[in-house]
Amino acid sequence: MHPKNAFYAQSGGVTAVINASAAGVIETARAHPEAIGTVYAGANGILGALHEDLIDTAAESAETIRALRHTPAGAFGSARYKLKGLEENRAEYERLIEVFRAHDIGYFFYNGGGDSQDTAHKVSQLGEAMGYPVTCIGIPKTVDNDLPVTDTCPGFGSVAKYIAVATREAGLDVASMAQTSTRVFILETMGRHAGWIAAASALAREAQGDPPHVILLPEVPLDEQRFLERVKASVEGFGYCVVVVSEGVKNADGTFLSDQGTRDAFGHVQLGGVAPAIAALIKNTLGYKYHYAIADYLQRAARHIASATDVEQAYAVGQAAVEQALAGRNAIMPTIVRESDAPYRWHVGEVALAEVANVEARMPAEFIDASGFFVTDACLRYLRPLIAGEDYPPYRDGLPDYARLRGERVTPRLPDFRA
Amino acid sequence: MHPKNAFYAQSGGVTAVINASAAGVIETARAHPEAIGTVYAGANGILGALHEDLIDTAAESAETIRALRHTPAGAFGSARYKLKGLEENRAEYERLIEVFRAHDIGYFFYNGGGDSQDTAHKVSQLGEAMGYPVTCIGIPKTVDNDLPVTDTCPGFGSVAKYIAVATREAGLDVASMAQTSTRVFILETMGRHAGWIAAASALAREAQGDPPHVILLPEVPLDEQRFLERVKASVEGFGYCVVVVSEGVKNADGTFLSDQGTRDAFGHVQLGGVAPAIAALIKNTLGYKYHYAIADYLQRAARHIASATDVEQAYAVGQAAVEQALAGRNAIMPTIVRESDAPYRWHVGEVALAEVANVEARMPAEFIDASGFFVTDACLRYLRPLIAGEDYPPYRDGLPDYARLRGERVTPRLPDFRA
Repeated sequence: MHPKNAFYAQSGGVTAVINASAAGVIETARAHPEAIGTVYAGANGILGALHEDLIDTAAESAETIRALRHTPAGAFGSARYKLKGLEENRAEYERLIEVFRAHDIGYFFYNGGGDSQDTAHKVSQLGEAMGYPVTCIGIPKTVDNDLPVTDTCPGFGSVAKYIAVATREAGLDVASMAQTSTRVFILETMGRHAGWIAAASALAREAQGDPPHVILLPEVPLDEQRFLERVKASVEGFGYCVVVVSEGVKNADGTFLSDQGTRDAFGHVQLGGVAPAIAALIKNTLGYKYHYAIADYLQRAARHIASATDVEQAYAVGQAAVEQALAGRNAIMPTIVRESDAPYRWHVGEVALAEVANVEARMPAEFIDASGFFVTDACLRYLRPLIAGEDYPPYRDGLPDYARLRGERVTPRLPDFRA
Repeated sequence: MHPKNAFYAQSGGVTAVINASAAGVIETARAHPEAIGTVYAGANGILGALHEDLIDTAAESAETIRALRHTPAGAFGSARYKLKGLEENRAEYERLIEVFRAHDIGYFFYNGGGDSQDTAHKVSQLGEAMGYPVTCIGIPKTVDNDLPVTDTCPGFGSVAKYIAVATREAGLDVASMAQTSTRVFILETMGRHAGWIAAASALAREAQGDPPHVILLPEVPLDEQRFLERVKASVEGFGYCVVVVSEGVKNADGTFLSDQGTRDAFGHVQLGGVAPAIAALIKNTLGYKYHYAIADYLQRAARHIASATDVEQAYAVGQAAVEQALAGRNAIMPTIVRESDAPYRWHVGEVALAEVANVEARMPAEFIDASGFFVTDACLRYLRPLIAGEDYPPYRDGLPDYARLRGERVTPRLPDFRA
């Protein structure tokens, strides 16, 4: 049997470690030339397949592929592009299969969140139906940690570490100035529907009175009165208050605290600006001087302070995806299976794509404490190992030396396609 | 001659490395027990002297003092508190001298910016006049890099490194998503009157087309039309645009682009929210999807990514301050003197406090390019060595292990004082 080529694509919001998964895929594929020919990567994710814009990863040196392990964001380009349902837009799925056929692609590795697992699942079904079976393996990735079944999602551990470090550092800053300056500091984090990222700030607390003093989660509707009481108690008791707020925090009526009114390509409401809303609430009622930070992309791109555990797991799921494909598995996603919290032990398992496609995992209720403004010890036990270890990139001239791809394109063989 | 005690205080906005200066002072003083007794630190800066709230650094272990070198923010507390002029408020200056006399303090090390150098200068004059001469040495510190004479200010190199790293990382993020998502990313930096911090983002650019694509400096009044043209050209040419904007950027009429209308204790206008103003301008005229980050305190507290050069210089000026005092110097501030750019060579010099008090250094005109939207090669040559080297703090459980002081207080000997 002659080796089939593989197609790898990155999807949705990028992370500090999604390229480590890419390195896991490509290095493992290169180690099996008897079974896998060339790995083609989609330029700008799945759009690369639709537009037959394929990056030839064979043109990249072993050194460059190794450097992907320490390079943040999506080296091949990612896309916020959700394929519609099979009924609504069969043409797009058929186009994917045509492009795969034209380039002798027998493996599809799709690195993304719940939407992407859904797409991978549909492609596997359609290939079968069209007489061109493709081995489809999803590779988990979300900073939001919102995929089901897997214990954690690669990408989350690093943003969790970033937020915990930022909370500790900014907390020291505010503590040292509070006597005459800022009393309340607000850090806005990502996290549309799940509070995982904001929750991770709790890891910064070593002793009673340490920041963060209040965490606002999307899972807990904001009770303004109780929130303000808590801020006041913190300022009066400790001299200052550090609030970590998830971008997805909602009012009691279920509306987002700061809904900009726009939507992304997946139809999700696009958020931002919760921190100023919280700041204004505090200033107008309690009168405290405030500052706020909005970490935005800095938090998910911060490869310089990535979690070593997260990097290792991101690589491992990329590697496992290829190994599972070679073992004849199909329509599955490798998962992280936790064996124990301390010492932290884990291995890679698998789950059927049908079980994870479009399912969004929330924080369990037992991870949020009775006040609703902090997390429980169980949550901390879960989170702690995910930020463990540092995996610093190499530096040149004081800056991280990230990979630069040649990005050589494969000559198209099909007519243009417009979806 | 019996050894006099010393008083050390931190002033104004804290930095990632001001505690390294504290370590330099305390370790050097401890090495000279024949000349310096105990180093007392002001709790919350100069307020500690006014309120006779002194921290006994002798109660801190050698290990803790060494750990200050890798701990951000002000370990003893800082204050935004400017002593008024001698004529207006002689009582405060006299109180300082009384407290110094009561605790046998013969050395005053004041670690801060231009305002603090002014205070140190006045205390040295008044001590003389009151018959209680005090050796007053200023120790430079500002993230804004706005002290004159010294080649750079400890604190700046680390925030410069943070901003350059953040620009490179977020730039990769935006580049990888721009096809279907965010086109314009705006990073708001500190820098009230001087554009040094925003300018440092330019170090992230390795090749033509790399971010940042536009830098908005307080030194260059915003020309909206030309700015928007530049953003458009970047999006059309490179697919995306990264804008780094200093909080102090002004309109053509000299008003701050985003004046919150409040003032800090030094009477400075308090800023914030420039990024959303720039974002709205772009959205409303060009229609591009945008994201913005406001780094705020995260940038100046980011000891985890401090510049090794900056840490070394911060320690060196603390050490030099004590050595200069022991050599009989008075009313001076140690400075960083640059000998060469590449290889970077420097030594510690000195300047009279009278020459630096209340003088604010701006970016030289030859550091801003003809467009006004970027910096020159001369500026890059100046900046590059300041971010060189990494000086990672130790980690425990995935988080930086920062110093915790005992903070033991000295028993007061004077009646209460109310300024």
